[in-house]
Amino acid sequence: MRILVVNPNTTRTMTRTIEAAARAAAAQGTAIEAATSAMGPVSIEGYYDEAFAVPGLLAEIRRGEAGGAEAAVIACFDDTGLDAARSMATIPVIGICEAALGLASFVASRFTVVTTSERSRVPVEELVRRYGFAARAKVRVAGVPVLALEDPGSGAVARLKGEIVRALDEDHAEAIVLGCAGMADLAAALQREFGVPVIDGVGAAVKQAEALVSLGLTTGKRGAYAPPSAKPYAGMLAEFAPPAA
Amino acid sequence: MRILVVNPNTTRTMTRTIEAAARAAAAQGTAIEAATSAMGPVSIEGYYDEAFAVPGLLAEIRRGEAGGAEAAVIACFDDTGLDAARSMATIPVIGICEAALGLASFVASRFTVVTTSERSRVPVEELVRRYGFAARAKVRVAGVPVLALEDPGSGAVARLKGEIVRALDEDHAEAIVLGCAGMADLAAALQREFGVPVIDGVGAAVKQAEALVSLGLTTGKRGAYAPPSAKPYAGMLAEFAPPAA
Amino acid sequence: MRILVVNPNTTRTMTRTIEAAARAAAAQGTAIEAATSAMGPVSIEGYYDEAFAVPGLLAEIRRGEAGGAEAAVIACFDDTGLDAARSMATIPVIGICEAALGLASFVASRFTVVTTSERSRVPVEELVRRYGFAARAKVRVAGVPVLALEDPGSGAVARLKGEIVRALDEDHAEAIVLGCAGMADLAAALQREFGVPVIDGVGAAVKQAEALVSLGLTTGKRGAYAPPSAKPYAGMLAEFAPPAA
Amino acid sequence: MRILVVNPNTTRTMTRTIEAAARAAAAQGTAIEAATSAMGPVSIEGYYDEAFAVPGLLAEIRRGEAGGAEAAVIACFDDTGLDAARSMATIPVIGICEAALGLASFVASRFTVVTTSERSRVPVEELVRRYGFAARAKVRVAGVPVLALEDPGSGAVARLKGEIVRALDEDHAEAIVLGCAGMADLAAALQREFGVPVIDGVGAAVKQAEALVSLGLTTGKRGAYAPPSAKPYAGMLAEFAPPAA
Amino acid sequence: MRILVVNPNTTRTMTRTIEAAARAAAAQGTAIEAATSAMGPVSIEGYYDEAFAVPGLLAEIRRGEAGGAEAAVIACFDDTGLDAARSMATIPVIGICEAALGLASFVASRFTVVTTSERSRVPVEELVRRYGFAARAKVRVAGVPVLALEDPGSGAVARLKGEIVRALDEDHAEAIVLGCAGMADLAAALQREFGVPVIDGVGAAVKQAEALVSLGLTTGKRGAYAPPSAKPYAGMLAEFAPPAA
Amino acid sequence: MRILVVNPNTTRTMTRTIEAAARAAAAQGTAIEAATSAMGPVSIEGYYDEAFAVPGLLAEIRRGEAGGAEAAVIACFDDTGLDAARSMATIPVIGICEAALGLASFVASRFTVVTTSERSRVPVEELVRRYGFAARAKVRVAGVPVLALEDPGSGAVARLKGEIVRALDEDHAEAIVLGCAGMADLAAALQREFGVPVIDGVGAAVKQAEALVSLGLTTGKRGAYAPPSAKPYAGMLAEFAPPAA
Repeated sequence: MRILVVNPNTTRTMTRTIEAAARAAAAQGTAIEAATSAMGPVSIEGYYDEAFAVPGLLAEIRRGEAGGAEAAVIACFDDTGLDAARSMATIPVIGICEAALGLASFVASRFTVVTTSERSRVPVEELVRRYGFAARAKVRVAGVPVLALEDPGSGAVARLKGEIVRALDEDHAEAIVLGCAGMADLAAALQREFGVPVIDGVGAAVKQAEALVSLGLTTGKRGAYAPPSAKPYAGMLAEFAPPAA
Repeated sequence: MRILVVNPNTTRTMTRTIEAAARAAAAQGTAIEAATSAMGPVSIEGYYDEAFAVPGLLAEIRRGEAGGAEAAVIACFDDTGLDAARSMATIPVIGICEAALGLASFVASRFTVVTTSERSRVPVEELVRRYGFAARAKVRVAGVPVLALEDPGSGAVARLKGEIVRALDEDHAEAIVLGCAGMADLAAALQREFGVPVIDGVGAAVKQAEALVSLGLTTGKRGAYAPPSAKPYAGMLAEFAPPAA
Repeated sequence: MRILVVNPNTTRTMTRTIEAAARAAAAQGTAIEAATSAMGPVSIEGYYDEAFAVPGLLAEIRRGEAGGAEAAVIACFDDTGLDAARSMATIPVIGICEAALGLASFVASRFTVVTTSERSRVPVEELVRRYGFAARAKVRVAGVPVLALEDPGSGAVARLKGEIVRALDEDHAEAIVLGCAGMADLAAALQREFGVPVIDGVGAAVKQAEALVSLGLTTGKRGAYAPPSAKPYAGMLAEFAPPAA
Repeated sequence: MRILVVNPNTTRTMTRTIEAAARAAAAQGTAIEAATSAMGPVSIEGYYDEAFAVPGLLAEIRRGEAGGAEAAVIACFDDTGLDAARSMATIPVIGICEAALGLASFVASRFTVVTTSERSRVPVEELVRRYGFAARAKVRVAGVPVLALEDPGSGAVARLKGEIVRALDEDHAEAIVLGCAGMADLAAALQREFGVPVIDGVGAAVKQAEALVSLGLTTGKRGAYAPPSAKPYAGMLAEFAPPAA
Repeated sequence: MRILVVNPNTTRTMTRTIEAAARAAAAQGTAIEAATSAMGPVSIEGYYDEAFAVPGLLAEIRRGEAGGAEAAVIACFDDTGLDAARSMATIPVIGICEAALGLASFVASRFTVVTTSERSRVPVEELVRRYGFAARAKVRVAGVPVLALEDPGSGAVARLKGEIVRALDEDHAEAIVLGCAGMADLAAALQREFGVPVIDGVGAAVKQAEALVSLGLTTGKRGAYAPPSAKPYAGMLAEFAPPAA
Repeated sequence: MRILVVNPNTTRTMTRTIEAAARAAAAQGTAIEAATSAMGPVSIEGYYDEAFAVPGLLAEIRRGEAGGAEAAVIACFDDTGLDAARSMATIPVIGICEAALGLASFVASRFTVVTTSERSRVPVEELVRRYGFAARAKVRVAGVPVLALEDPGSGAVARLKGEIVRALDEDHAEAIVLGCAGMADLAAALQREFGVPVIDGVGAAVKQAEALVSLGLTTGKRGAYAPPSAKPYAGMLAEFAPPAA
């Protein structure tokens, strides 16, 4: 089974973190193909970056699908471009936020997402609500830029731990969800340190992708995710115009 | 007061319909500047088109703001790119869906949105939910492609009227919201024909834009809509990279 | 365009504050007609006062409509008597709470209402819920009697500012809604001081009234807001009995 | 134990229906005191009538409390004036809608309210939502004026039965709530005819009033239901001004 | 009228507390029959204990119904086995949590449940949500084992009082609901001490049981609570197999 | 990896259907151990059967965990005993309803569950709500007894197909969830026939169990799922008493 994992930002070092987490989660027989978006922001922090990450992300999914990938994972906790990807692709597509929240709900009745910066608090809260977990999950912000997670001297991990402590004390959290793909390498150590389940979305999404492929399931195409109807696109995005079916 | 109204699809004839509705709604002293996106889809039908409409839309808002527009209206019922636009712009930005639902709530306790095609049913339902009207508003689909609204021989208007009849009978709707910018020219006639308020989002959004400018209100910038932090964007979207503040 | 703004309490000095805010918000060509209820409480603090403010309020709206007003604003943050007014009047009627929350939602993803006293906390929370903003808006109480807002020596403004500080810190509010018509004169100065949008409902409602009139929209009359059926009213309220249509 | 049951409309024949239902429900040792409002509408159909029923209703509760009643029931399915009454009175006050929905929830997982006319559909739906039963209860309209319930030749009962049939078939209702005080005398016969629990709010509210008095419970007075603060009321409602505590 | 009150744990001293509260609440003419479950846990703390309390509980209700009881009360705040009991019994069955929340909603717009231990926080929150009170009620944990409530030297009451203080200060609670049957004897004294309504579920449920019996209401049997269809049960639970109707 | 799949009813032929579906879904290297409950009902239809299925189910999970199973699946669509199992076990436990709804949400924006009989409609609706899918999923009833699914001559499959047709037409469903473990063998054929994703919970839950084990995740034990505190259980259930930790 071949699963494409797309980092929708353009920072290759972050792709390596994501790829390692994906490989660690993959079943025997699952090949992980990691891709980095070739256009758009170096990190996705808030709604504006998110919008410009979508074309590059969709290009990678299109290329991956053409190359034989059987499922795709979008490795940004905003679930960037997920709905568009589901419309475009015939293979199933999974976001790491939805996957992480889903797994958390199987090991905890109440849990807390710790995300990076204030710009992401509300977008993540909106996802929590949209996915149906508003009564069960809280969102906290560690106050760290995404790329600081790659810098051991940034103090980012300490601030993340501080919020985990508060989540356990004040939110009565029974599990922690890491709210950024760039935190994927921290899950195991944090789980050992705090003694509660700590869920990374990249691994979670790889397992969901495997599940869908194994079960022969892919996106239903008769409603919101119907393939886009054929039409011209103007300007530099013309190459993305949906072809006639 | 100068208000920019952006048609985020690239069909200029639709921009003319939108511009006329905006002008009809504008107060004395309000100048409407209509713009058509220069890149992306000729019509926005579902999540995929929506994603590719955002860069062109944001380019127009950026240009408009630089040129002195005091508020911007996004004239697509999906409220395409609204969150990104609010992050980018310092002027207020209004979506026609949120504006139409808001005005409908002032003239009706229950109302129905009639939108174009099945691809848009769920996206509009999600907006209705996100904006807080899930208990008050239903969504119906007329089954007409967006551009058919511009073709008198398409039967689109008849199908739209059929759904309005059903909304009044089955949903107990007290008002109708037209769920596509391309229907803007139909509101007045439909209101006369059916004897209930019929709300077009373009006019509604122009009035909200005037309201915000008059009252000196613009987007709050300390949370979800903080300006994007400075960073490079790769590839053909590089021109959109947020500058240092 | 003539817009009636009714202060549903009987304190004329508060009407002057309201009238000034309404005039400041009105477009060129909009005439504001301010009215003070002739019967009922001197201030509306909680459910009991609210009930007794309704007849006087409706009398003013009836008189205003007969005199040619094209829309009416109810200038109390409880949206006192709004549903009854919509049933009675053929002109559109706007409450300052619904108008303020609506505008706030266009400039902020999360916001906080600061209202006067404990008696009003739950009524305002119920309106926030009813209008669909429960996931986006919090309610805080400054602990000031309504009429203390008119007394510079009362310390009311300082207490209001204290709650705004807490809203920004603890609620992550991106905008503030002033939860009492008597605070209408404070919005501009508070917005300058705190650097976030501060929304006064009186100005907000005037703009919504202008919007509805401009767009030819008024209350739909086939459901909850159908005109009251003709019937006798007994006792001192007999003059309010709905006439035969 | 003395329980006051107030008919907030001014139709004495309806009071007799209500009184009979209250007496039939009362425990041994409970004295029912039925009162008819002396001012306001002859029937309460929609928001406008409701507003004008409140002063007369509150006058009866005030008089009843002064005369020694230990609890009050408001016998209109809109729960007219309930919040104001709870603020004013020191004795507990129960609405027939809240009482009926509460009892229905103890005998059915899903149930339907059948109310009188279109004007009442949305007000009742709003109560169902406010009381927390939106996921469990539907509202249907029989299309009968309130006073037609007193006229055997009106066909009202047949229309009511028609809606009960539809509720059982289409809503999967396991119980029926009668959505008007004027239907109180029909509950027993309908329950026999349809073989499902049929709940009348008048009897339900009498039992809740007995429960609160027996258990020594009355309205909590530290928040929304704090006694109104002393202040003058102007005009013909001056007699209702809250006295100094 | 004969009402069965079942303590679904096997601790007879707690049954005595429950029985006394039930007797104190019962109307003249109501006979309270208290029963203690003969199998299962000595106290119910969390989901596991709850599951094993159900067979013993249902055995007591079956025996009680056969013996002529006209209604049954389940005296554990988790409303243990309530849905199963409603399916099995033809007499009405009331849980003390649902009864307490219902009565609280008649005397307070906002209230707080104080329950025993962390294991019960989420189960009680889920009941609050299921019964429709999520917007009005908060849940607090006193940190006391259930059986410590019977031990004057345990400090349990002091911890309970501490949470009541916090509920009044931080939750703006207008009433308190005692979240454990073992607290039934404390309600009156706590109400005197704190000056707010304090609701014990045992008394509340007895009154609801009386209400249903008086009004001739019992569980509707055409949906979720249809009698279990006849089938064999294997093993030591075989005696519970539903008989042919 | 060893995964225990428990059929909580006592019908071994149904266990074989479940086991086959589990095996078909399992990854290479996953050993499926199917168990049939030794006590309780032959089929679980509604709340009463559910209650008596729990002890036998928990006995199997306890035995399986002691024998080295690394995760457990509860193969009944009511997610029978799930919370109790999570409290008891240290291995992760998955219900087939929660697993199926989760996977459905990754391939469809709107979907419909088709379950067996009226007794199960509301329990399944309650699960849909509790798991956060109330806005996205509808529940339909095929009107077939559980064990009829094993009888080719019963017409059960035809009735199931009839409801799928209605779900696609009336609910705008983009995917179908099979609402009974006994339907596990039908998913693939129905998916081919209807051309939409058809999700069986048994396969879905096996994949979730694999995911949790692979990622080193198990139930968080500091809140609702803390191990039951040690205490005696009386009577025939004494063997289930939680031991001292």
